[in-house]
Amino acid sequence: MTTKQIIFLNNEYIDYEKAFIHIENRGFQLGDGIYEVVLYENNRLIDFDGHIQRLFRSADRINLKIEQNAEQFKEIFLNLLQKNQQKIGAIYIQITRGDGPRIQNMPDTYQPTVIIITKPYKAIKKQDLDNGFSAITHEDIRWHNCDIKSISLLANTTLKQKAHSQNCTEAILIRDNIITEGSFSNVFIIKNEEIITKGADKRILKGITRDRIIKLAQENKIKVTQREFSREELLDADEVFVTSSTLKIRPITTIDNVKIGSGKTGKITQKLIKIYKNFIENYSEN
Amino acid sequence: MTTKQIIFLNNEYIDYEKAFIHIENRGFQLGDGIYEVVLYENNRLIDFDGHIQRLFRSADRINLKIEQNAEQFKEIFLNLLQKNQQKIGAIYIQITRGDGPRIQNMPDTYQPTVIIITKPYKAIKKQDLDNGFSAITHEDIRWHNCDIKSISLLANTTLKQKAHSQNCTEAILIRDNIITEGSFSNVFIIKNEEIITKGADKRILKGITRDRIIKLAQENKIKVTQREFSREELLDADEVFVTSSTLKIRPITTIDNVKIGSGKTGKITQKLIKIYKNFIENYSEN
Repeated sequence: MTTKQIIFLNNEYIDYEKAFIHIENRGFQLGDGIYEVVLYENNRLIDFDGHIQRLFRSADRINLKIEQNAEQFKEIFLNLLQKNQQKIGAIYIQITRGDGPRIQNMPDTYQPTVIIITKPYKAIKKQDLDNGFSAITHEDIRWHNCDIKSISLLANTTLKQKAHSQNCTEAILIRDNIITEGSFSNVFIIKNEEIITKGADKRILKGITRDRIIKLAQENKIKVTQREFSREELLDADEVFVTSSTLKIRPITTIDNVKIGSGKTGKITQKLIKIYKNFIENYSEN
Repeated sequence: MTTKQIIFLNNEYIDYEKAFIHIENRGFQLGDGIYEVVLYENNRLIDFDGHIQRLFRSADRINLKIEQNAEQFKEIFLNLLQKNQQKIGAIYIQITRGDGPRIQNMPDTYQPTVIIITKPYKAIKKQDLDNGFSAITHEDIRWHNCDIKSISLLANTTLKQKAHSQNCTEAILIRDNIITEGSFSNVFIIKNEEIITKGADKRILKGITRDRIIKLAQENKIKVTQREFSREELLDADEVFVTSSTLKIRPITTIDNVKIGSGKTGKITQKLIKIYKNFIENYSEN
């Protein structure tokens, strides 16, 4: 992170290195907050509307007040991109239930804390995309409201770290014998040219990239089915990939040391990567 | 919270109102940290050893480095009590995986962030203790490593708030048809003069006050059994109480609008409250 960077904190644009919050912020002591990550390329905020709508949905789910509206957030995002002269990257926005003496329930009145940070984005090498990445499977130890994009992420970061410690890119999670999602991504399998991903409920985050990929696949006459699937189906799939704003489409070609399909990124995943690349290159906001 | 208060932050004693951390602290963005609450009365730290041992156990469970040892923490705690001239209250300690650009896995190197805050303690009125308090039951929506005293507490604070919004003091949680614990406490029932509480596993936090109450009850010839029990048994109990460092023994006499026993604090709970009061009054370290 460059020290020259400007971030947004509570209605001010300030230097990254001077961006501090009080120790009794409910985000710091109770994980009482939500976040979003929005990709941007050449000053276009990819699927901004979907992300901001989900931010408000997460806020609603935990009864968190947001003082800005979508238009105001867009303005702040674009201001930050201009100030930081960053062409390609991701914007991180986090809103917490503000400062105040730690109480176990929630305060009646509070001033929400808003932070917005722009982050450079590392492009993936073509060769890595062709070879694919590795994943582990793991019991889904997270809480039961995974549809809320909460900052109480100790379970997620623990699971992601388990994957990393085994030189894997993601932990694919299993609850009640079905695959839910990754620690920070949604999971798709492909079998007999059909894309399968779990339907959205409280057990997964309804990914904005997930929804976009489903829509793009359907527009390109690739069959998509939303249904539950097991670890056995996962390992037996022809192709597997995970999605998120920053991962985009990340092919998974080895899971728990088992080769998926040919062990290289399959042809439908390759096709989707091209479709999504094209979508972003031609993206325009209305 | 008085503005004159001194707190401990990263090896410095500073004014509460000047205690800030960077926005990219992993405690603030990922809930990647742990905490403890230790009661103190007249400069004696009640069950300090148990709390500090659990702090180190929580740290171990998430592979979090702690730079201080128990003796150093004790010295800091006592220094703070002296600086703040507080005779009765609770000490809050939180340790997170430090500052740094947000990564989804865990950093290899980091400087842990340590905050320690003393908090005044509100004594409960005798009349309230005699009448008891109300609770709701709720599905246990938390993660599956509840033995770790983590700051990723959005589920807990959401549940506590649900109780508060119904004028209740606690939410008693149910997972797989058994009572686990409260949102911020352990749960005990009494039936036919026998105290029953769930055995410690990953579904509950092994409370220091819980363990102390079990020990004191046994020393006073009250039978204690650690086993699972259902919501039906809870509602059918003669007496119910919850425990934590700050709640101590908190009688629960109404659950989901159902009266427990006589609807007043029962005789064994009253006896335990006296025993615990006596324990604290005569507490000496070592």
